Amino acid sequence: MITLLVEAAVFVLPEVKVEGDSYRHLFRARRVEVGETLRVVDGRGRARWGKVARVDRTSASVTLGEPAPSHEPAFRLDLLVPTCRLERASWLVEKATELGISGVHFLNTVRAPRELGEGSLSRLHRVAIAALEQCHGSRLPEITGPHSWRALANLTATAGPRRWFLDTEAAGAGWGEVQGEGGALLVGPEGGWDPGERNDLLAASWRPVHLGERVLRLETAALAGATLLLLPGPAGG
Amino acid sequence: MITLLVEAAVFVLPEVKVEGDSYRHLFRARRVEVGETLRVVDGRGRARWGKVARVDRTSASVTLGEPAPSHEPAFRLDLLVPTCRLERASWLVEKATELGISGVHFLNTVRAPRELGEGSLSRLHRVAIAALEQCHGSRLPEITGPHSWRALANLTATAGPRRWFLDTEAAGAGWGEVQGEGGALLVGPEGGWDPGERNDLLAASWRPVHLGERVLRLETAALAGATLLLLPGPAGG
Repeated sequence: MITLLVEAAVFVLPEVKVEGDSYRHLFRARRVEVGETLRVVDGRGRARWGKVARVDRTSASVTLGEPAPSHEPAFRLDLLVPTCRLERASWLVEKATELGISGVHFLNTVRAPRELGEGSLSRLHRVAIAALEQCHGSRLPEITGPHSWRALANLTATAGPRRWFLDTEAAGAGWGEVQGEGGALLVGPEGGWDPGERNDLLAASWRPVHLGERVLRLETAALAGATLLLLPGPAGG
Repeated sequence: MITLLVEAAVFVLPEVKVEGDSYRHLFRARRVEVGETLRVVDGRGRARWGKVARVDRTSASVTLGEPAPSHEPAFRLDLLVPTCRLERASWLVEKATELGISGVHFLNTVRAPRELGEGSLSRLHRVAIAALEQCHGSRLPEITGPHSWRALANLTATAGPRRWFLDTEAAGAGWGEVQGEGGALLVGPEGGWDPGERNDLLAASWRPVHLGERVLRLETAALAGATLLLLPGPAGG
């Protein structure tokens, strides 16, 4: 199966035209032919079956039909992580997209004050597109930042009551039940939270959780947390 | 806190000598001084507190004392994964070490027949050492391969009855309960299992599990599976 991401504006039309990189990738490199079925997604959680109607020299046409499975988790989870080197941010965005995260937001903390670097967000956006097509999802995660610490309340205003932060000083796992439409998971810098930041979080009713005694790198902690919140685990594990 | 890995043979002595790369890293770059406390581990799951007794021009001496926390999961999990490009194998080994895996074994399957490349295992071994010291674990994962498909039974002979394989054709999650001393998790190639391989696994009582409708890259699937088996998840999540 092949999943193709198109603009939301053309997703509602009876036929879409495929050009540029997508054309070259699908119709030159992968040699998709007239009559083949594709899964076409709009990046916002919708998917339709498509059929290749015509392949020309620089573009192809795909007729859009019935809705296809969205392959999106029922629970919408936003990740908030400290700014980090682009290589690690890129790996994190790829894996988080595969797992079905709704957004990855980079945040400055006292112990992780760095910038993301020019062009980083657009590079991370391309990483997310490739990962979404590869894993057959349909909703592209929002990738934003770097945000200041003070922007945290606004960023998570719609996350509802399910707001967790990873904290090695928390007493136990303490996830509680995962219910409702969605939530937010905030990962701290590897040097740990600044005491003022921890106080802010507790005062704003963020729930501290703890993934064990080891010090995980921030991208490892973020993916482990997302896995536990989004994928089916063992009974009593 | 600093964790230092030493040879198991010297771990039992009252004092260890630190030389070479470890010496340069700790006593030159990080400027650790006489009197500071280190956590010294043997790579086999044991840890002791150590105190820096002397720092010379090319070596240092650390006096070993009481046992320290091992930070090892109670459940011993071995990962078996198809051979893959070194960059991805390297990420996988780093993250799996942080999560507390007991071994990473690379396997040839019908749809992933490649070699690992000369020098790969020793590079992966160095990645695991760095990750172990960084996350403050104490047991270095075994890294082996590439193994033939026929070696699978021998490789997992000691894993006991807990043997899972990831399979997109499985009906549901189906982890069952995670009990006993340990187990093995086998990840398939991204192209899926060859029907003969699936039959071999079912005939040998491997349990098929399924992580959702998306197609995860093999290293993502391996880390997600290890997370679900080793870390505390939400109640009823």
